[in-house]
Formats: sequence, structure tokens, C-alpha cells
Amino acid sequence: MKTGAGTRPLDGNAVRTQRTRARILAESLRLFNERGEARVTTGMIAETLNMSPGNLYYHFRNKEQIVEELFRAFESRVGGEPVPRGRGVTAAIEDLWFYLHLMLEGIWEYRFLYRNLDDLLARNRKLRDHFNRMIDAKHASVVALCEGLVRAGSMRATPEEIRALARNVLVVATYWLNFRSLRAPREAAGAGDLGLGAYQVMALVAPYLLGEAREHLELLSLNYLE
Amino acid sequence: MKTGAGTRPLDGNAVRTQRTRARILAESLRLFNERGEARVTTGMIAETLNMSPGNLYYHFRNKEQIVEELFRAFESRVGGEPVPRGRGVTAAIEDLWFYLHLMLEGIWEYRFLYRNLDDLLARNRKLRDHFNRMIDAKHASVVALCEGLVRAGSMRATPEEIRALARNVLVVATYWLNFRSLRAPREAAGAGDLGLGAYQVMALVAPYLLGEAREHLELLSLNYLE
Repeated sequence: MKTGAGTRPLDGNAVRTQRTRARILAESLRLFNERGEARVTTGMIAETLNMSPGNLYYHFRNKEQIVEELFRAFESRVGGEPVPRGRGVTAAIEDLWFYLHLMLEGIWEYRFLYRNLDDLLARNRKLRDHFNRMIDAKHASVVALCEGLVRAGSMRATPEEIRALARNVLVVATYWLNFRSLRAPREAAGAGDLGLGAYQVMALVAPYLLGEAREHLELLSLNYLE
Repeated sequence: MKTGAGTRPLDGNAVRTQRTRARILAESLRLFNERGEARVTTGMIAETLNMSPGNLYYHFRNKEQIVEELFRAFESRVGGEPVPRGRGVTAAIEDLWFYLHLMLEGIWEYRFLYRNLDDLLARNRKLRDHFNRMIDAKHASVVALCEGLVRAGSMRATPEEIRALARNVLVVATYWLNFRSLRAPREAAGAGDLGLGAYQVMALVAPYLLGEAREHLELLSLNYLE
């Protein structure tokens, strides 16, 4: 996909190639989410795009390559860390809530990955490694965030408690939408569940918060529940 | 499978039939756990049992019937509720820990169900209803248990906090082994992970506990972590 020196504009062919790749990826994502990745073939993707299988294979060798590309897109979608905006502890709590919402939105957008996560990562070692690096990074940033709150006097928790809390934050955030889709038919799961998911993750943190931080979180939770 | 009036002993044929059914179920469970249910056919089950496919079909119409029977066995394995032994709050905490361990053992024993829970329950409405009734019952007993601790002065939590806590208990207990198998190769997951799973679930409850209950849980946690 390289087009030569940095400043040279893409030629018409390269633009078309990129556009076709993007269309294939978007349609694959839609079909994977709708039917489950295992039930979608490259033939079906080509057909819904009115494209010959040969043309699709020109862009992606096989379905696994499409899955990997979508995983990379997912990774850059949710890979960011919450940026402390440094306007005191109530802002930090609001930033965290907002960040969780974005994360859960990303998981919802690429939900096919989570539907058979186990199988997907069992058959593809590269994806497993990527996924685990992502979880490691999230774990580290939850721990750092809690340590910051402890230093600011807004949280009371031992290092052990923080580690267990961070693990639970990751389990609940990772599997929240799966849990919801068991409880409600898939069609019904949606935007409201992302809000409840963020609320559930914040509920993990809440009992360790002190003073203003806890009061502010309780206020946000009340607003959410009403 | 009825053998008539309650006291009549089973005849030889009925005993053989039950024994064969039990062998089929045990072998199916082993293969499903090892390879994933989707990758195991009734033909493979018959073959590893040195049984003709016809003989297997005599006992189970299809694979789905085997899955349903295994699900029923799982349900009765984990369906029990923790029995309060009424020897004070420290005993209650120990009972709860032990109960969680048994639950996670049950999930481990029937882990194929959890590996593709979403797909399994999406394709089988009966299983979905059963599973949700089970989750409802667990949710209700976690809530009742917390309310009991609040009444006993061993927990401080609002009704809203208890509901959010119960939901998180269920998410972490349900998906703990899935989460672990993402983090470590499947072979490495095992008994130690059940202990860590029980610890993680107790860590959800811990910050709401007061006095003796909290101290006792911290003691148990320290023992576990050492």
C-alpha cells in the first residue's frame, strides 16, 4: 500500500484501492456483528458488495486477514488512555465515566470480536498477544489512576485492593455487553446498556472513594439511574 | 427412561441403557471441553466410545439433545444456594467463599458451555431461558445475603449499591474463567484460577463490609495471597 515519497499525492489507482479496502472492511464488520464472524464467508462479503471473489482476494488473502485488520482498527479505537485534565477530583471522576463510555462504545462497535473471543484468540496467536497487551495497558492505567486518587486523598485502598479492583474493572468492562446480550435479546441491547455498563464499572470503584470524589460519583450515579 | 412404579428395581436392559447414556454424556463433556462444542460431531463421540452412530442416535436424537442434557447436569451442579449455617458473621463469610469456589468449580467442569455462551444461547431459546432463570436466582440470593449482612450490622450499602454489587458479582463469576483463559493458555488455567476467581468475587464485596466481617475477609484474603 506504500505510495512512495511522503509528499507525493496518491494516484487514482491507490485512492481506488484504499476506498475498496475500506468498503470491504466496513461491510465485513457489519456482517460479522450481525451474524457472527464464524457464519460469514468471504464469498458472502463479496456478494453483498457486488464484487467478484477475485477482486476481494486481491485486497485480502483470506477472512483471517480481514479479522486482523478490523482488530487493529478496534485497537486504535479503544487503545487511548484517559487524559487527566487536571481540574480537580470531580473532573477526574467525570473524565473516567466518559472514558468508560467511549471504551464500551468501541466494544459495541466491534462486538463480533467479543462474541467468540475465546475461539478467536485461541486460533490466532498474534491477536491473542495484541489483546493481552491491550489488557495489560488498561490494567496499568487503572492502577495508576487509583494510585493518583489515593495520593490526592480521594481514595482509601491498599495496593492489593487496587490490583484486585483493576482486575475486576477489566473483567466487567470486557464482558459487560456479553452479559447483557445473554440477559436480553441481542436486538434490545444497545446504547442504554453502554450507560449501565459504565455505571457498573464505576460501582466497582465507588466504595473506595472518599469525600468529594465519592459524593460526586453518587451524584452522577443518581442522575444516571433517574 | 421411566421404569414404572417407584420401588420396582431396574431390569438389566434399563441399567445398560442408563449406563450407556452416562458414558455418552461423560465422553461428550470431555470432548466439548477439550475441543469446543462446535468442533465435535456425534460421529466423533461415537467413534471415541467404539460405538456405532446408530447406537448413539438410539440414546440421543442429535448433538443438541446431548448439550441440553449436559446443561441440565450443570444446572443441578451449581443450582444450589449457599446455606447459612448461622454461626455468626465470620462463618457466613467462610461459607460464602467456599460456595463461590464450588460455583467456579462447576463452571470449570462444564466450561464448554461458557466458551461460546452467546452462540449457544442464541441458537437455543430453552437453554437461554434456563440460564437466565439461574442468573435471576443467583442475583436474588446475593441480594438477600447482602441484606442479611446489612441487618446484622456487618455491611454498609444502600439498596442501589447492593443491586449494582450483585450484578457485578454475577458478571465476574460468570466470565472469570473466560477472562483467565484469554490471559493464560488454556492448559495453564485450572485449580489455581478458581481460587483467584473466588478471591476476585470476594473483593467486590469486601469494601462494603464492616468490623469483624471485613477483618475476617481480609484475613482469608491474606491467607489466599500468601
